[in-house]
Parts: sequence; structure tokens; C-alpha cells
Amino acid sequence: MQDTVRDYLLGLQARIVAALEEAGGDAFRSDRWVREAGGPLEGEGLSRLVEDGRLLERGGCSFSHVKGRTLPPSATQHRPELAGAPFEAMGVSLVFHPRNPYVPTVHMNVRMLAAFPVGAAEPVTWFGGGMDLTPYYGFEEDAQHFHRTNRDALAPFGADKYPRFKQWCDEYFFLKHRQEPRGIGGVFFDDFAELGFERSFAMLQAVGDALLPAYLPIVERRQPLPYGERERDFQAYRRGRYVEFNLVFDRGTLFGLQSGGRTESILMSMPPLVKWRYDWRPEPGTPEARLYTDFLRPRDWAAEG
Amino acid sequence: MQDTVRDYLLGLQARIVAALEEAGGDAFRSDRWVREAGGPLEGEGLSRLVEDGRLLERGGCSFSHVKGRTLPPSATQHRPELAGAPFEAMGVSLVFHPRNPYVPTVHMNVRMLAAFPVGAAEPVTWFGGGMDLTPYYGFEEDAQHFHRTNRDALAPFGADKYPRFKQWCDEYFFLKHRQEPRGIGGVFFDDFAELGFERSFAMLQAVGDALLPAYLPIVERRQPLPYGERERDFQAYRRGRYVEFNLVFDRGTLFGLQSGGRTESILMSMPPLVKWRYDWRPEPGTPEARLYTDFLRPRDWAAEG
Repeated sequence: MQDTVRDYLLGLQARIVAALEEAGGDAFRSDRWVREAGGPLEGEGLSRLVEDGRLLERGGCSFSHVKGRTLPPSATQHRPELAGAPFEAMGVSLVFHPRNPYVPTVHMNVRMLAAFPVGAAEPVTWFGGGMDLTPYYGFEEDAQHFHRTNRDALAPFGADKYPRFKQWCDEYFFLKHRQEPRGIGGVFFDDFAELGFERSFAMLQAVGDALLPAYLPIVERRQPLPYGERERDFQAYRRGRYVEFNLVFDRGTLFGLQSGGRTESILMSMPPLVKWRYDWRPEPGTPEARLYTDFLRPRDWAAEG
Repeated sequence: MQDTVRDYLLGLQARIVAALEEAGGDAFRSDRWVREAGGPLEGEGLSRLVEDGRLLERGGCSFSHVKGRTLPPSATQHRPELAGAPFEAMGVSLVFHPRNPYVPTVHMNVRMLAAFPVGAAEPVTWFGGGMDLTPYYGFEEDAQHFHRTNRDALAPFGADKYPRFKQWCDEYFFLKHRQEPRGIGGVFFDDFAELGFERSFAMLQAVGDALLPAYLPIVERRQPLPYGERERDFQAYRRGRYVEFNLVFDRGTLFGLQSGGRTESILMSMPPLVKWRYDWRPEPGTPEARLYTDFLRPRDWAAEG
């Protein structure tokens, strides 16, 4: 059972990396790591990454498979009775930060957790994940395409899934201290097992498989657009919000850093070049202002256009 | 009593800003803000800041004075019985990020808290603060000078103060996920009232007054040194650690962001331009490597040289 999931995840990572290499002309590096038994976590992983590429200024797509002695409470929100049990976790996680400010940043994660409560005959397994898009310059066509691809991928698993996971994503990727969403959202789910193992895993696969059709057409449309210092500057400023979200709010990042996870893998999500400035606001009517007024608010993108 | 502290803090802010303006030729902007009564916090503040200056690429020195209805537990580590009481807090907080990578970043905070427990005749007051230095290129002479200035400032208040506060600073400004100190330390203290109000306040003043003699001679020595892309690049990379510390570990930053504090004032501590890269290490034997081997480890700087 775990082997099937593992094979799917490794294959997904390989497909995504190959497609991005072809689309962008960047060669991904490989970094394989092993955590020996003895500490709180053991396991291994394969990080694939680009730095200073043509398409991706920084991007990572990581597979990891770890076992731990005691499941932290933060790992299962809705089943506190599993906290403390031995567990196994595997997943693929990616963040791509393109160089061209017209190409949005994308994040995806698909993961399986299995807990082994004392005395139980079978492990308790569940799935989590999702993907979300963070544009610097908004295009309604792109936001609609991204959301529709996710809606269509989830449709076979029940009409409630996309609206639920879309709202969950809007709520999760929200910077409370800025009262601002991270981007235009996508889908997010956790503690998911309600369809039984086979169908729940099939749903996870549908989400993972949707990353390339959701993202690549946007890359192809926006990558040729010319840009200058102004756009690069705004991109670097907005990337500061990405850092703030991931370091202040993201449960996965915080749990990883606090529990002794592998820092360099966890912080592959950090953008390559970031700027902060004081109390800055875009001039009304500019494309930069349109990001805030038209894109950084909840919209039913899949139903539009 | 509160008025005396307030007058000292506003005077300290003015003196520090005037001295930095003279030393660096940068004109600080002023931003005055008011939080009207009605929310969880009310009060006012004066932010003084430079962006894109000659000496300071980004720097802020903020005074704030707020009143709140209920003191959060995080605000007083050692007196949980005061949690929930109405409180008043005032302080000056500064972070200066110089442009020249040979000039270290400095941080200082001096603050007073007063809690008003129900039924108590007098408020309970205490002080906290300190300063610490974060070099990009280390100079033993600078680290020794910074620590000696703090040691000498604290000497009149008991021989135990500097060693205690130096160790507290080393423990506090530590990036657990990197197993790395933020810089070469300094002094840090909190919940301080053990000398009585007058002497404790005098000690706070001694620390506040020590900022300029601790930092300005270092600015004057290092500001003339020429630098190039290599040094700027390493500075931007190391600034990533500053971001990681402040957003993941710093209690003041997290409490401020989570409790509805003023985001732009709190995040004045963020550097102007920051880079992340994967699993990077300096070449052994370079000045960049020397920062890690010779400076980013606990040393009794005040006793050296």
C-alpha cells in the first residue's frame, strides 16, 4: 500500500521536473539525502532544484519519506487520539519562483500520512495537499484556467470537493497581519480519508496530476512577455509576503523547522531575491494596484469568464 | 513615573536619530501614528526611518506607547499571575541595516511595562531590552568594543549584570534550525525590576545611552571600506538569517503580528534586500568562512584583546 503511493509520488516528481525542464530550458540539480535512524525522524528524500535558471530563478520539487516515533498534534487536526503514535509520512512538495514577474509563483503539495496506534491491526492513513497560485501581475484568464483545472480534476470525487477545498485554500493561505490573501488561491485539503483508501488516494493523484495542466499553459503564455526593472522590483517586494506567510503562518514550515526537519529542504520555498520597504502602496490605476483590487480578494474564478 | 520614562525614551530616540543622521548623511523620515481606543490596543507612536540612504540601506528607530486591556502571557515570562491584567507598554526599538557589508547590522530595544492588577494600589512595573550586533564580515576589534561598552555601561548596577545579560542574549538570538547564533551577541534582559524602580530604570537608561558609543565607532571605522558585488551578495544571503530569526523565533515580532500590532512598524526590522540559496557554504579560508568559524560562536568578547 505504502509502496504504491511511494511509486506514484516519485513518478509525479519525475514528470513535473521533466516537463519544467522542457518548458523552461533549466536543468534541475538532484540532491539525495538520508536521515539515519536514531533521532526523532529517520528517512530519506530526493530534492530536485534549479537556481538562477532561465525560467525559474529558484525552484524546488522535493520527495521525502520519513518515519517518526511520535506523531505531533499539529499533524492531525481532527484526530487528536492519534497524537503520539508512531507514524510514516511521504509526499512531494514544490515551489517554483519564476524570474519573469509576469509568470506566477506556484506551490503544490501532495502527501500521505500513516499512524500506527498501539494495538491497532491496521494503520490509520490519510491524505493532504493542494496547490495555489501567487501572481505578481494578475491575468483573469490565468486565474480562471488554474481554478477550472482543479475543479475538473476533483469533479469525479464529488461535486462538494472543489468548493470545499477552494474555500479551505482561501482561508489557509491568508496573511492575517496584512489582511491579505497570499495569491489567487487554488485548493487545499487535509486529514482526508472520507472516500476510503483507494478513492482518497485516487483523488490525491488527480490533484497531483493536475499541476502540469494547471500551470504550464500559464507559463507558456506569460514567459514571452518582456519586463523591466519596475516589474522586477514589484515582484521582489511581493515575494516578501511569501516569506512572511511561510515563516509566520505555514504549519508545515514551522513544524518542520521546530521538529528538527531538514532546514535546506524546508526553506527551498523561500524566494531567491526579496525586498521589504516601509508602508508602500501602488499608485491607484496601475497594474500593481490591480493585483490588490482585482486579484487579492476571494473570487469564484472557476465560474467566471 | 510613566512620564519620566516616556520623556527619556523620546529623548533617546531623538539623540540616536540625530547622531545617525550626522554620521551617515541620511535624513530620517517621520511617521506618527495613532491607534484610537476601541480595539484590543490603543496608543500612539513615532517611527523614524531611512530607506535607500547612503549609510543605511534601511533603518528604523521607533517609539511606541500603547495601552491594552489584557496582558498576554507571553509579555511576562516569570509572573504569570499578571496575565490578563490591563497594561501599559512603552519603548524604543531600532534596527539599522547598513548598505556597506563591512558595517554590521545593529538592533536595540528598551522598554517598560506596567500592569494594573485588579485591587492593587500600585502598578507592577518592569523593564526589558538590550542590544546585539550582526556582522557580515567580522572584526574582532569591533566585537570587543561592542561588548566592552555594554559591560562598562552595566558595571554600576552589579558585576553579575553583564555576564548574565550577555549569556541571555547568546541564548535568545539563536537560530535553532540552523544551530547558529544570529550574530556576535550583546546583552538582553527581560522582566527586570530587581533593583527597585529607580535603579532598574537607571539601568535601562544606561543600556539605551550605550547604543551610540557602542555602535558609532564601528560605523566610522568600517563605512569607508570599499566593497563589491561579492560582499553585497554575501550580505544579502546572511540577511536571510535575520529574516528567519525575526519571523520564526522573535517573541516580540510574533506577538506583535498575532495580536494585531502595527505591521509596518513591526516589520521595519526586515532587511531591504535579501537572498536565499540552497545549501550554500563559503569556501574554507575566505573572509566569509571566517564569519562562521571565528564569529558565529559564543566568545567572551569583552575579556579578549
